[in-house]
Amino acid sequence: MASSRLSGIFTPNIVPLDRHGDINEAETRRYIDWLIDHGVHGLYPNGSTGEFTRFTVEERRRIIEIIADQTRGRVPILAGAAEANVKETVAACEYYHDLGVRAVAIVSPFYYKLSPAGVYAYFKEIADHSPIDITLYNIPMFASPIDVPTVQRLAEECERVVAIKDSSGDLPHMMRMIAAVRPLRPEFSFLTGWDAALMPMLLIGCDGGTNATSGVVPEITRKLYDLTLEHRIEAARDLQYRLLKLFDAMLYSAEFPEGFRQAMRLRGFEPGEGRSPKALSQVQSLDKLRDQLQCLLAAEGFTSEPDSGCPIGDDVDNEDVARIVAGVVMELKKRGLA
Amino acid sequence: MASSRLSGIFTPNIVPLDRHGDINEAETRRYIDWLIDHGVHGLYPNGSTGEFTRFTVEERRRIIEIIADQTRGRVPILAGAAEANVKETVAACEYYHDLGVRAVAIVSPFYYKLSPAGVYAYFKEIADHSPIDITLYNIPMFASPIDVPTVQRLAEECERVVAIKDSSGDLPHMMRMIAAVRPLRPEFSFLTGWDAALMPMLLIGCDGGTNATSGVVPEITRKLYDLTLEHRIEAARDLQYRLLKLFDAMLYSAEFPEGFRQAMRLRGFEPGEGRSPKALSQVQSLDKLRDQLQCLLAAEGFTSEPDSGCPIGDDVDNEDVARIVAGVVMELKKRGLA
Amino acid sequence: MASSRLSGIFTPNIVPLDRHGDINEAETRRYIDWLIDHGVHGLYPNGSTGEFTRFTVEERRRIIEIIADQTRGRVPILAGAAEANVKETVAACEYYHDLGVRAVAIVSPFYYKLSPAGVYAYFKEIADHSPIDITLYNIPMFASPIDVPTVQRLAEECERVVAIKDSSGDLPHMMRMIAAVRPLRPEFSFLTGWDAALMPMLLIGCDGGTNATSGVVPEITRKLYDLTLEHRIEAARDLQYRLLKLFDAMLYSAEFPEGFRQAMRLRGFEPGEGRSPKALSQVQSLDKLRDQLQCLLAAEGFTSEPDSGCPIGDDVDNEDVARIVAGVVMELKKRGLA
Amino acid sequence: MASSRLSGIFTPNIVPLDRHGDINEAETRRYIDWLIDHGVHGLYPNGSTGEFTRFTVEERRRIIEIIADQTRGRVPILAGAAEANVKETVAACEYYHDLGVRAVAIVSPFYYKLSPAGVYAYFKEIADHSPIDITLYNIPMFASPIDVPTVQRLAEECERVVAIKDSSGDLPHMMRMIAAVRPLRPEFSFLTGWDAALMPMLLIGCDGGTNATSGVVPEITRKLYDLTLEHRIEAARDLQYRLLKLFDAMLYSAEFPEGFRQAMRLRGFEPGEGRSPKALSQVQSLDKLRDQLQCLLAAEGFTSEPDSGCPIGDDVDNEDVARIVAGVVMELKKRGLA
Repeated sequence: MASSRLSGIFTPNIVPLDRHGDINEAETRRYIDWLIDHGVHGLYPNGSTGEFTRFTVEERRRIIEIIADQTRGRVPILAGAAEANVKETVAACEYYHDLGVRAVAIVSPFYYKLSPAGVYAYFKEIADHSPIDITLYNIPMFASPIDVPTVQRLAEECERVVAIKDSSGDLPHMMRMIAAVRPLRPEFSFLTGWDAALMPMLLIGCDGGTNATSGVVPEITRKLYDLTLEHRIEAARDLQYRLLKLFDAMLYSAEFPEGFRQAMRLRGFEPGEGRSPKALSQVQSLDKLRDQLQCLLAAEGFTSEPDSGCPIGDDVDNEDVARIVAGVVMELKKRGLA
Repeated sequence: MASSRLSGIFTPNIVPLDRHGDINEAETRRYIDWLIDHGVHGLYPNGSTGEFTRFTVEERRRIIEIIADQTRGRVPILAGAAEANVKETVAACEYYHDLGVRAVAIVSPFYYKLSPAGVYAYFKEIADHSPIDITLYNIPMFASPIDVPTVQRLAEECERVVAIKDSSGDLPHMMRMIAAVRPLRPEFSFLTGWDAALMPMLLIGCDGGTNATSGVVPEITRKLYDLTLEHRIEAARDLQYRLLKLFDAMLYSAEFPEGFRQAMRLRGFEPGEGRSPKALSQVQSLDKLRDQLQCLLAAEGFTSEPDSGCPIGDDVDNEDVARIVAGVVMELKKRGLA
Repeated sequence: MASSRLSGIFTPNIVPLDRHGDINEAETRRYIDWLIDHGVHGLYPNGSTGEFTRFTVEERRRIIEIIADQTRGRVPILAGAAEANVKETVAACEYYHDLGVRAVAIVSPFYYKLSPAGVYAYFKEIADHSPIDITLYNIPMFASPIDVPTVQRLAEECERVVAIKDSSGDLPHMMRMIAAVRPLRPEFSFLTGWDAALMPMLLIGCDGGTNATSGVVPEITRKLYDLTLEHRIEAARDLQYRLLKLFDAMLYSAEFPEGFRQAMRLRGFEPGEGRSPKALSQVQSLDKLRDQLQCLLAAEGFTSEPDSGCPIGDDVDNEDVARIVAGVVMELKKRGLA
Repeated sequence: MASSRLSGIFTPNIVPLDRHGDINEAETRRYIDWLIDHGVHGLYPNGSTGEFTRFTVEERRRIIEIIADQTRGRVPILAGAAEANVKETVAACEYYHDLGVRAVAIVSPFYYKLSPAGVYAYFKEIADHSPIDITLYNIPMFASPIDVPTVQRLAEECERVVAIKDSSGDLPHMMRMIAAVRPLRPEFSFLTGWDAALMPMLLIGCDGGTNATSGVVPEITRKLYDLTLEHRIEAARDLQYRLLKLFDAMLYSAEFPEGFRQAMRLRGFEPGEGRSPKALSQVQSLDKLRDQLQCLLAAEGFTSEPDSGCPIGDDVDNEDVARIVAGVVMELKKRGLA
């Protein structure tokens, strides 16, 4: 198994919480079954979508335990294993290895922004002590970037490092990594975490993705993957545009990953309240977003429209508002009221 | 003609200079003929590659005159027309219209970074007074970004605005623009200025590109365009990887666009010295880059290898150097010399 | 004169325009007299506040001619001299030298972002050919940054380079430049373009500033300079806080430098409409800003309050709005209306 | 006590580690005594300099226990209390409250970049449940920025929030916060974490700092604080320039906070190896940095010069190297060797 590339769509798992804010095990198990039934190739708990930083060490382990137990080998698990330092991270690798997951994913050091040499040394030290295959996780908007020479060197020196998950969305960067690593390590896998570019990423050589949309519309993400691999370009492109609309709405309209949590609820799950407290303005925004997402999901046939209906055309923009205000003021002036 | 989309590969023209630093008209004419003979679909003078900011108003006009005269309608010309302010820019639009170019390209306001409302107002004012079709030019690393709602609004309100050239290299951004504009203006054209992503950009719906590589290896850029449009994915991907290597070498190893100028020399033209003075360290870097580019062009069969030959393997990196230094120091210590 | 440091407050001159958008010479002359009468130490035309990029070559020269003629040696002039390339810039240096200005200021290359080596080579070439003293102009938000080693090297090698104007607002950066250059060139001058930090910049060793607020409230900027030099810390601090409020309102509430243009109008000048077209939303914002600025200037005794009066407390923020909306909705629900 | 402002120099404590990488309690106690004896006003464990993210929950608690026990009320302790989520953070607040620390400091949410509304909600929730005074910790290079309206609102609504520590180094930003908060909460304290601007920060109204240099040269940081408060501007400025040199060397020449760790060793402490693994190139850089720091500390009289001596003049730069290389090549060519 170690010799075949990690490939396909891995779902970064959101963790359902109960009304006390604790892990909702039953709902987690129900959700995992649903995902597998809807065609995702693998699971990816304890990633950014899984809000790994907001759980305790014990909870992160419990999450993997539940998911490994529920999955029972039906699909491979990529377990996020980053902890406070190398020693703790290696301990997590050992623990997850014993649980039988396929590989771990380790995000580049965050909070402090390390130099490439520091990033290299960090992963090298972990790889030298891990009993399990490692996926590097590059997400430069949140963590120290992993640059191309660093990926190349780690691929060269560390057998345990078998893949990179890149969430930069930077297509030429992905190509540069592939060009640098594939000749040395043909079985090394490249996964994209940027759903907005899944089709083009696959077309330039990626092996798959860890895509948050697959936790909400696994049918679409999976189909996009299949169509792209079959080089059915027109059909894949159409689907990529539809996925982009959903992705943008979930990603940019709320604090990440609250938009995905909302959408998951619309698919029939009870994700509970996220652990990050919300201001009143955020609660109101989420209410609006829920309706918007329901419209998008209704358009795909996954749910009904909200009671308030769905808009036909576009939103107004600033200049529209400016025009309306100017019109009202002029009207009021005419009548001697302003 | 106005109703058909701008499409294909437009070459952003480098301007050959003579030993006084003035426009080398003869070499410019010879270069234009060569480009057309090698299959580019159009020409794009006075763009970023053409160093429009480093010429005077009169020189910018002279460049278009020469190129329009030499081209004599064989291919369409997209003429960079940005000047100091709206009035001067509109005057340039009129002038280039009289010279018979197909359209102008106008970069978003630079130096000052304008808000979306300011960018909108700028282009709106120009579009209301231009006698010629306009391509918006978005290059956020150098100029005020043109965001999606602004493109959409300009496309809606200004018939004269017929295209956007986007050099951000951001694929989902291009998709968002296409999704927002194409339903309203089916003949609106989307061109990418980012050679590193030409193939995927075309696959998600772009109409072509203004690509600096086509001024150096028009054979490759054109063939990549053709293969991609034919959906010959494997062949196109292979070519895109080769183009990326060339693009990166020309773009990142020297002050832009000096790398392209060097490569043009290797294709048999005399571009002269760029107008930006060079420090000694830069001259030495360019000498090294020339050999590296000659190796890349030799690998493509466009030139012979340099006298010093071409490297087989990879460059050493920082950790290699560190190891070598550590080895030498240890050796010296053993012998009591350090 | 060349041996004494440039020092004091230089006003970056806004150029009054007439209703055709052309230079309003009479108003420019009246404004210059007012500035000198109100205590500024020098003038700085063709800078960023002076919107040098939005004028033609001929207009930039005309601006210096008018101001030099009107000033007649009463205060030194620092003339912005950046043109399209080194040759044109040197020609401007010669022209302004003949007009008798004290020195020129040359912004680092913009549009293209040059490396430190490129920035060095650019200024070195100009300094080698300029007949007049040169002030380097570092404004990293708009142009290629001039780093500390580059300033040091230019100060070492170029007698003509006598000062740097830094608009980064980065205090430790200013200290690093002073530490690197002052031992070599005691007469080299350091000017800050960041009014928000004028007092602390002077306290750590700056010689003065080119401060846009001095074009609107020369009384305050000048007094702040004097109090700080006298080490009257409490009084200076109080004034710096008041200047900050004005500076922020003029800088951040509109496209730069429209806020300064509005405020100039409130001081009794007719600056005309700026050359950058405005969207309706921007016009409305400027109307609001004008009232806000009038309140701030009224609080300083420079003008009367607007007819609509001035607010006592603070603006509402997003959470206030959210609360109000939630209250209204709850009210409506109670009554069965929502 | 709660009614007096937090003020003075708080030392962000580096945690000495033993050869197993565990907390070195004895050395920690010895270091704390030395710091207090050398005049720091307070201690600040579990901050960025203290590498709080690289310790486990249990270790973070142990660090506060040791320091509280050793300090025995001689100086106030500001204990970093950020944990994985609000619940865990509140638990840490309770724990540290029971240990008798003066206040906690809580960094803004990191990894995910929250909006101002999210940052507000996070701190509000904690403040509503904390039994101990809270210092907000703004460090935008590592964590979600805390903007001025958010500080103002939290100061208004939360009695428990009594201070902000700001490590942005942005002087006008500090002034904006002071202007917004001080009228409402006169006892609210403003601390700067940016040693490079300590003197100017104090002069515009800050109450003190949490300054990493005070862990290495407490004599200087403390004296700078005293001189500045006495308005002995010339003397303070001189010291600020000397501190800047040390600060820059420790901050920019190695992965943070390794430079501070090295310098601490030169002051006679055994900090051990940091928990972030080092590449060979980094080890070599640190060796060089140690000599450089020893020279700087020797110049201040805190240590002897390194055996290899200290340089008199400046380092060579790129253009020097370029010139030397060009000279050698020319020499070789003359002799027919190149």
